Amino acid sequence: MGNGKIYLVGFGPGAQEHMSFRARAAIAEADVVIGYSTYIKLVQDLLEGKEVIKKGMTEELDRCTEAYEHARAGRIVALISSGDIGVYGMAGPTYEVLLQSGWQPGAGIEVEVIPGTTALSACAALVGAPLTHDFCSISLSDLLTPWPVIARRIEAAAHADFVVALYNPKSGRRTGQIVEAQRILLRHRSPDTPVAVVKSAYRNKQSIQMTRLAQMADCEIGMLTTVLIGNSSTFMQDGLMITPRGYANKYDSLTGETLDGEKAGRSLSHGLDGWKMNVRARLSRGESPDEIARHFDLPVVEIESIMNKEGADV
Amino acid sequence: MGNGKIYLVGFGPGAQEHMSFRARAAIAEADVVIGYSTYIKLVQDLLEGKEVIKKGMTEELDRCTEAYEHARAGRIVALISSGDIGVYGMAGPTYEVLLQSGWQPGAGIEVEVIPGTTALSACAALVGAPLTHDFCSISLSDLLTPWPVIARRIEAAAHADFVVALYNPKSGRRTGQIVEAQRILLRHRSPDTPVAVVKSAYRNKQSIQMTRLAQMADCEIGMLTTVLIGNSSTFMQDGLMITPRGYANKYDSLTGETLDGEKAGRSLSHGLDGWKMNVRARLSRGESPDEIARHFDLPVVEIESIMNKEGADV
Repeated sequence: MGNGKIYLVGFGPGAQEHMSFRARAAIAEADVVIGYSTYIKLVQDLLEGKEVIKKGMTEELDRCTEAYEHARAGRIVALISSGDIGVYGMAGPTYEVLLQSGWQPGAGIEVEVIPGTTALSACAALVGAPLTHDFCSISLSDLLTPWPVIARRIEAAAHADFVVALYNPKSGRRTGQIVEAQRILLRHRSPDTPVAVVKSAYRNKQSIQMTRLAQMADCEIGMLTTVLIGNSSTFMQDGLMITPRGYANKYDSLTGETLDGEKAGRSLSHGLDGWKMNVRARLSRGESPDEIARHFDLPVVEIESIMNKEGADV
Repeated sequence: MGNGKIYLVGFGPGAQEHMSFRARAAIAEADVVIGYSTYIKLVQDLLEGKEVIKKGMTEELDRCTEAYEHARAGRIVALISSGDIGVYGMAGPTYEVLLQSGWQPGAGIEVEVIPGTTALSACAALVGAPLTHDFCSISLSDLLTPWPVIARRIEAAAHADFVVALYNPKSGRRTGQIVEAQRILLRHRSPDTPVAVVKSAYRNKQSIQMTRLAQMADCEIGMLTTVLIGNSSTFMQDGLMITPRGYANKYDSLTGETLDGEKAGRSLSHGLDGWKMNVRARLSRGESPDEIARHFDLPVVEIESIMNKEGADV
């Protein structure tokens, strides 16, 4: 009997077409396929002749232990999920169960995570290009995470102008979290901020609602929905949601003409070095570190770190 | 002559095996394939008989306009990139160029974004399961983004305990940004925080450095590197980097026993409702809103929002 193997497979948004070749090959190689019943259904026609173990939503740790038991019996197991199995997925709990059971990488049972297209990428592709700049992913599920931790993250993401992807925004029982998220975001961001509410991306029941932050919580939102909230530069045009990458800071238009003082391929004058020079100039004009910190909306220790190094790296 | 079409294709980390079926079909259908020369090389064997247009790093807007011109001539164009073309990718600038040129969705030239596995998913899969909880993606390139904006985002991500993925961490010219990022993160996170530095994921020259936050900036880091930084719960064991999903808050162990007062499938007592009850209990014990806000590390307006609604939604 050979060594067993565990594939942790993310097959992308809607199975089949958006699955990677590697994901498909892993499922084909498996003797046993384990997954939440909805996921099993999405890849049904790849499962002929295999042992298939369907699990419910709350049986997550069972899926891990069962995968391990089959692999110990020398079988090849594919534990599957839609999207990317590493993003809020079963890759984490499976590794935890394995390590607690005394399993070690490289000795006996091999484990391979096969990444896939996660929901935020899939939803973004359907609505335009909202993820062209820095983004955060936040799960609104407070089943395993204390609410103040979630609230702090929404607050931070809103304040620092990240594009925000909300996973698990709402369920039958959890209806207030999306309202709270909206309220926190509205303290920092315009009510007109573009929002895309995408359900079942690339599946039969796909539905897309393009809306604004002020109306977000009024949309139809459920367990299979991902919500994308723009940053302060994101715009909506002709039904497309687009976050500019920042060209407007540098180029007059999109024709490639550089603005006075900016050089193509070089850091902005507001880049790290330019910023340090700017802070030093303000200090020498007599501005206080507190004033400068407020101007740039950064903690005063950031200004002090430049003062401390003054002369050291000019 | 039929209408042209533009496919914006993300082919995942290392071409071929991790590409989706849809991405491959789009490239196969294309008359013209446009991309940065490194990307073209990765899919070379799919390009026979096609017009191939290679572009350099700074010719990004040329790629968009050229795609549009070919599509206007009735051709099918695939503009390709590794990873997900929507994540810091060409999907955004292409839509911007098209809209500025008077193009409209649904009239004439069709545009389709084909999502792929982005670098943070690919790198995570290679090092364990670091993305099992909320994460941020931040680009350290200050070519188009002012440094104070980037610094504010690192600060926010560090303070709110997000797992952090750094794209474009360093280049030949930009060497100080990763040092600054490390310094800001160290103000909030332990020097022992696990860090994975992954170069050329799933390509021939793949290299992985598992390290700690205190040593992060000393690693070999370049243009093809993505850096993943754990949150305060992330641990490193047997060379794997794992972020727990939060089971420890709720379950005694991973065996599925619920702790006293917690119910499987229900929100934590520290979930939204439990948190509101907790805040109200503290208020009635005479704690001030400021004290409570400090305790939960949230703005005092969050405590006030509960006070204002007291009685309204109990």
